[in-house]
Amino acid sequence: MKRSGFKKKGAKGERDLVHLFWEAGWAASRVAGSGSVRLPSPDIIAGNGARKIGIEAKVVGGLRKYFPKKEISELKEYCCRFGAEPWIAIKFDNLGWRFISLEDLEETKEGFVVSIKLAKDKGLLFEEFVQVV
Amino acid sequence: MKRSGFKKKGAKGERDLVHLFWEAGWAASRVAGSGSVRLPSPDIIAGNGARKIGIEAKVVGGLRKYFPKKEISELKEYCCRFGAEPWIAIKFDNLGWRFISLEDLEETKEGFVVSIKLAKDKGLLFEEFVQVV
Repeated sequence: MKRSGFKKKGAKGERDLVHLFWEAGWAASRVAGSGSVRLPSPDIIAGNGARKIGIEAKVVGGLRKYFPKKEISELKEYCCRFGAEPWIAIKFDNLGWRFISLEDLEETKEGFVVSIKLAKDKGLLFEEFVQVV
Repeated sequence: MKRSGFKKKGAKGERDLVHLFWEAGWAASRVAGSGSVRLPSPDIIAGNGARKIGIEAKVVGGLRKYFPKKEISELKEYCCRFGAEPWIAIKFDNLGWRFISLEDLEETKEGFVVSIKLAKDKGLLFEEFVQVV
């Protein structure tokens, strides 16, 4: 698949996830870029009154997904300033969305990685995620 | 000015406002559309840990800005679900941003209006707005 195809798949994945949150009674939005002067921003922001969540959302074709250190530190910074929980939402082929806590990411030399095994073992299903208090 | 010119001016205004929030220690983002199935969404979402805000942000060339009833009711719904305060941020020519509470909007037959006089009389300056508890 071409790079632009991946990008489209990612945007569609984000939109699908936003709709799941609305169906579960939350408000959620995709976040737009901040223009020429880049500021940290998650892919999605969601809230249900009690909880507020900043999400990096990834649709993954292979068996693992790498995250540069900067991506995770910017997610943390954003959520810390905003007052939101930072989460990774990841969708491997033939597997529904899994929500991974930052503490569960595996560290690598240059950042972090989520394998399909980690997603299955430690990730929360969407239905579990929206019920966590 | 052509329609597309207004749109660009609006997007630039939103980006400027997002940067003001970051400089004041908040996190803030422009919100992207939700695709073909339209969901309510504010123009900007911002938070500082204690407060979370959903904002309709408008850069206005004339002396007043009209808001359709639906735009305001969707802002309310979004903020109510999310757990955020709903605000209007409006920037008239030769006037800085003013933050207007929904209760201060003037009602019309088809929605609401903010005149430059109302913005001056009742609107909060950005510096005031980020200090409100």
